[in-house]
Amino acid sequence: MNIAILFGGSSFEHEISIVSAITMKKVLKTSTLTYIFVSPDREFYLIDTDKINSKLFSSGEYKKGKQLTLKQGGFFAEGMFGSKEIDFDVVLNLIHGRDGEDGKISSMMAFFLVPFISPRIEASSLSYNKLYTKFLAESLGVKTVPYEHLSKNGERNISMTYPVIIKPVRLGSSIGVSIVKEASELDYALDVAFEFDSDVIVEPFIEGVKEFNQAGTFTSEWELSIVEEPQKEEFLDFEKKYMDFSRDSQVLSADISDEMKNNIQEAFKKIYDPLFKGSIIRCDFFVVNDEVLLNEINPIPGSMANYLFSDFEGMVQRLAKHLPKEQKIKVDYTYIHSIQSAKGKA
Amino acid sequence: MNIAILFGGSSFEHEISIVSAITMKKVLKTSTLTYIFVSPDREFYLIDTDKINSKLFSSGEYKKGKQLTLKQGGFFAEGMFGSKEIDFDVVLNLIHGRDGEDGKISSMMAFFLVPFISPRIEASSLSYNKLYTKFLAESLGVKTVPYEHLSKNGERNISMTYPVIIKPVRLGSSIGVSIVKEASELDYALDVAFEFDSDVIVEPFIEGVKEFNQAGTFTSEWELSIVEEPQKEEFLDFEKKYMDFSRDSQVLSADISDEMKNNIQEAFKKIYDPLFKGSIIRCDFFVVNDEVLLNEINPIPGSMANYLFSDFEGMVQRLAKHLPKEQKIKVDYTYIHSIQSAKGKA
Repeated sequence: MNIAILFGGSSFEHEISIVSAITMKKVLKTSTLTYIFVSPDREFYLIDTDKINSKLFSSGEYKKGKQLTLKQGGFFAEGMFGSKEIDFDVVLNLIHGRDGEDGKISSMMAFFLVPFISPRIEASSLSYNKLYTKFLAESLGVKTVPYEHLSKNGERNISMTYPVIIKPVRLGSSIGVSIVKEASELDYALDVAFEFDSDVIVEPFIEGVKEFNQAGTFTSEWELSIVEEPQKEEFLDFEKKYMDFSRDSQVLSADISDEMKNNIQEAFKKIYDPLFKGSIIRCDFFVVNDEVLLNEINPIPGSMANYLFSDFEGMVQRLAKHLPKEQKIKVDYTYIHSIQSAKGKA
Repeated sequence: MNIAILFGGSSFEHEISIVSAITMKKVLKTSTLTYIFVSPDREFYLIDTDKINSKLFSSGEYKKGKQLTLKQGGFFAEGMFGSKEIDFDVVLNLIHGRDGEDGKISSMMAFFLVPFISPRIEASSLSYNKLYTKFLAESLGVKTVPYEHLSKNGERNISMTYPVIIKPVRLGSSIGVSIVKEASELDYALDVAFEFDSDVIVEPFIEGVKEFNQAGTFTSEWELSIVEEPQKEEFLDFEKKYMDFSRDSQVLSADISDEMKNNIQEAFKKIYDPLFKGSIIRCDFFVVNDEVLLNEINPIPGSMANYLFSDFEGMVQRLAKHLPKEQKIKVDYTYIHSIQSAKGKA
């Protein structure tokens, strides 16, 4: 199978998307990979799979590569003798943050009828925004951490007891996030968060809370990963983050009861089905007093959470054969013909 | 000002988008109009403004026109001597239903940095889906009609008393909608609705409910239309619908108290700001026992609800000068440079 890795994008997470994309070479070993880079100014470039490395991008050398145009059916390289379609079976959307997770890439792939692995538009809009994720979870009967919502131009009162955690609603990877230990620190933390977003949510900061990650997809059946208990740090520095997005070897399952594992997996399935069909996502859960709470949905997880699956490559290939189909709409101009008849024009 | 009218699309409402688009010629009189048609198979065509009429599309004659490609900065016509950009100041998204209202067009305009009038991605996702509209309204403190949500593969029990109205969550223009007078009719109505969508909402059908429409936008200030009490019919036949999408002359304000008008306008503003900035929308409200309830949001209303405004063209031009700006993100590869240093590669 020929898998096109779409990566980069105009996003605060542009660089870690590059890291995720390079990691795919190590884990998608039997597939042919076609790398399509979205530059910071949103041009498409075909990148030679043999030559891909992080310096190609940081040096700007990628600009010497072949530029592509998105048209009906796929990506095209324009040349002297016309337009040549780039050959692949499916796009794997690996653009973290803006463009990739907010629904833009999904919209374009859907519009131009390019088969793609990624959350679809609605799933993207709801999971990219932490406030809408709360609405979604609530409507599906999945509990979440209690929260309050503040807007940039609104009042800055919260009724929660400290410490709290402040999160811009639309960003990933801890950007703009602060832990606030007392009321006097709130204003500054909000100033920081509102630099990145018009809306923030405030949640209680639960010291030492148990956290568990569950990734998965639905192909012709559920394919769920192991449950991982991630190593916790208040903040990841760049090397740790790099490690996180370049992980390529399987980790151990969390040491939890079958009942807890089952509760986590049931919550994952409720979130996933049917909204996230066509995608591989990771949900991060907290467990407080034996209750499973959704913390967040990672619609395009770092390195696609490959390290949580025993057969990641097989799963990607199976998913490529079970993508959601768009409803066919036939336009036959019956309605306009009727108007024309009524007006005596046809 | 040169306004590009983007219309058509792969949608059940393709044909009424054509009607809306043609109506713009009558109401945008001092502007230059550039018509860009999205064919049912989603190719872009430049349509001659002088020659536009419904038959051009129903006959397939549009295919003789110039085909366009969407690239960074705009639409381009490819020719023997390279690529020529189509000149305009702003796109007015007039694609009703799928593609136009679900966020695809907004995503593409945002990605390719084309200035556009339309709800942005999140606003589209939430207003295109009647269930998510409920979540949104609730979170903003705007009341809605009570509802129940049914899924295609779920149980078909409702606890509401009859008569009820069944609506697929994702379609406009009454497609798949039924009024169900008693329990024995429910199954058939759900079969019809589930032909169009995986999810439906069920609401009480309130005979003779008072309905009021409010359209508007925010330019440098609020520009709200008159409040209209639309003429009600259980279903619109094709001629009535045609009338509705080709309306071009101003209507009379509803005969309501200042207090009621104020309540309707306050509800509109709560929904609109800030999510719908950059768009002209119409909200349809019910009034039950003097309480204002949001019925639905029309993100791309028929003929842009021009007939509700005293200076529609001026408003479009002012809005074009006050579109939301995308946050600039600078990618400087600091992070990748750091990794390279740490690894001794740079």
